[in-house]
Amino acid sequence: MRIALDVMGGDHAPQSPLDGAIEAVRAMPEIEVVLVGPEALIREELAKRADAPAFDIVHASEVIGMDEHPAQAVRSKKDATMVVGMKLLKDGKADAFVSAGNTGGMLAAGIFNVGRIRGVKRPALGSRLPTRHPMFLLDLGANADVRPDYLQQFALMGSLYAERVLGVRNPRVGLLSNGEEEGKGNETVQEAFGLIQQLPINFGGNAEGRDIWNGRFNVIVTDGFTGNIVLKSAEGMGRMIRDMLKETFKSDPLSMLSGALFMPFGYKKIKKMMDPDEIGAAPLLGLNGAVLVAHGSSSPYAIHNAIRTASEVVKSNFIGMVEEALAATKENE
Amino acid sequence: MRIALDVMGGDHAPQSPLDGAIEAVRAMPEIEVVLVGPEALIREELAKRADAPAFDIVHASEVIGMDEHPAQAVRSKKDATMVVGMKLLKDGKADAFVSAGNTGGMLAAGIFNVGRIRGVKRPALGSRLPTRHPMFLLDLGANADVRPDYLQQFALMGSLYAERVLGVRNPRVGLLSNGEEEGKGNETVQEAFGLIQQLPINFGGNAEGRDIWNGRFNVIVTDGFTGNIVLKSAEGMGRMIRDMLKETFKSDPLSMLSGALFMPFGYKKIKKMMDPDEIGAAPLLGLNGAVLVAHGSSSPYAIHNAIRTASEVVKSNFIGMVEEALAATKENE
Repeated sequence: MRIALDVMGGDHAPQSPLDGAIEAVRAMPEIEVVLVGPEALIREELAKRADAPAFDIVHASEVIGMDEHPAQAVRSKKDATMVVGMKLLKDGKADAFVSAGNTGGMLAAGIFNVGRIRGVKRPALGSRLPTRHPMFLLDLGANADVRPDYLQQFALMGSLYAERVLGVRNPRVGLLSNGEEEGKGNETVQEAFGLIQQLPINFGGNAEGRDIWNGRFNVIVTDGFTGNIVLKSAEGMGRMIRDMLKETFKSDPLSMLSGALFMPFGYKKIKKMMDPDEIGAAPLLGLNGAVLVAHGSSSPYAIHNAIRTASEVVKSNFIGMVEEALAATKENE
Repeated sequence: MRIALDVMGGDHAPQSPLDGAIEAVRAMPEIEVVLVGPEALIREELAKRADAPAFDIVHASEVIGMDEHPAQAVRSKKDATMVVGMKLLKDGKADAFVSAGNTGGMLAAGIFNVGRIRGVKRPALGSRLPTRHPMFLLDLGANADVRPDYLQQFALMGSLYAERVLGVRNPRVGLLSNGEEEGKGNETVQEAFGLIQQLPINFGGNAEGRDIWNGRFNVIVTDGFTGNIVLKSAEGMGRMIRDMLKETFKSDPLSMLSGALFMPFGYKKIKKMMDPDEIGAAPLLGLNGAVLVAHGSSSPYAIHNAIRTASEVVKSNFIGMVEEALAATKENE
């Protein structure tokens, strides 16, 4: 299996991607990682790492920055790592493509170069959340405005992803809404409810905000506007609580003592569970190739996890399953 | 000042409202609380409380349950506590009305009986959030679908509420979106951006999900679908973290020791800040009277806080300010 990696993606490029690639091929010798980026720079960086294994390198001279307008950048930078990586995927020279760069850039480069799975109306960004049970949320921002039939397809793709890639048996799928009763929701959600009911999946009805965290659902479907806000709100709230704990642990001698005991013991476990580096990477579902986006501040360990997730997507034959399921849904209409 | 209280509202009625009313009048002797509910039951319950002060009681024989359809219930139960309380407000026999009951019921009873402030298109539910700095979020569920001009009015009302009731000088107002750059957002938000820019308020542009928690804004405006989901997601995540901390503190002897030290010292401070009972109550902004909804599981202390919040809304002349500001906005159009 060959997985292409954008060496220039993310806040810690090229170090994090290179170190992550080295970690990944050591841990998973069956995987070949193809490094996409400026060849001279990559060779120079690899030379600094005494015991780095040999990698295939595919040269790409340009980079799409985190703040660039995705579609414009993809069109104007023909030799960007994201564009070159997507072309490898399209031409069958890689089985998956991973980047910690601009998500919008990956989406645009993917749509232009790899295209959508036959029958998919809109690709969606999904991710596992840092919950105690497997919980996959989509869309996280690829589509700020959706139609009910987009949400229906997200439900189908999310269910297949949870089952085939995350290994959840008969995943329970919810539709995010402002109340659990049928009939709650904005107009789009109310209409999507009936469409999702027609799918051959385990649809559990409307999910409320709290249901993201309590284990009632394995997949929750929403538009990219709401999904992005919910995800970033959770990040912000987590950071606030962490800061408050730290300050509290410094506030008086007994709290300091409890903190000194808690930090190395209890805290590590919670931190590990909540750590975005543990999550792997967020798949762009609906593209006609395995495309995964790691978060911008990915450590080498996060990149390693992203490569592992990519290999799991490839092994699962997720794309073939989606195409088949969409064809079957269409026949039933 | 006379504040009407729904004795039958919430999960712990009538005990919590009655005990909360007693607490409130003891703490704030300038406030008169009018108890709305079944008179015989109220007298019986008050008789059990040896040193209860005297209250005005207004009889209401029916109750709107938490799971009833709001508009239907309000229409069919003419003698419901919510309907009777709203009529007191309308007739000037109370300056504010507080309930821990069904939020939708309060909204429907308010619209039918008290009406909207002149110029208000849609009332909105707002609330302070458990953040370290004053942060007021609206709408939390009164309007699952909104138009850009509704969001504009929410921004104006939220800004006035933060300034006049919460005491924030020149509150910074944000529009919740899936990215901070202008132009980000769904279609409604993109259009609302320009409308909010025209208001004479301190508009700070788009707010991301994380900005709810980090102190960048004092007021964040969104539709009731997104607001409800964000609020409930935060509740659910808070509960998950609390459960994890508790379990971690039991997992091994050193963690147990740190927990035994942390719980009575540090934890109490964090719990106090995050406690919904501390928040007071959520105002229904845009009704032509001071209407506040306390959360369903309100303790007596939460009811006491809700009555205090109601008195602050009355003292602030919030309703007069909104009417004036909307008239001025209209003249400028």
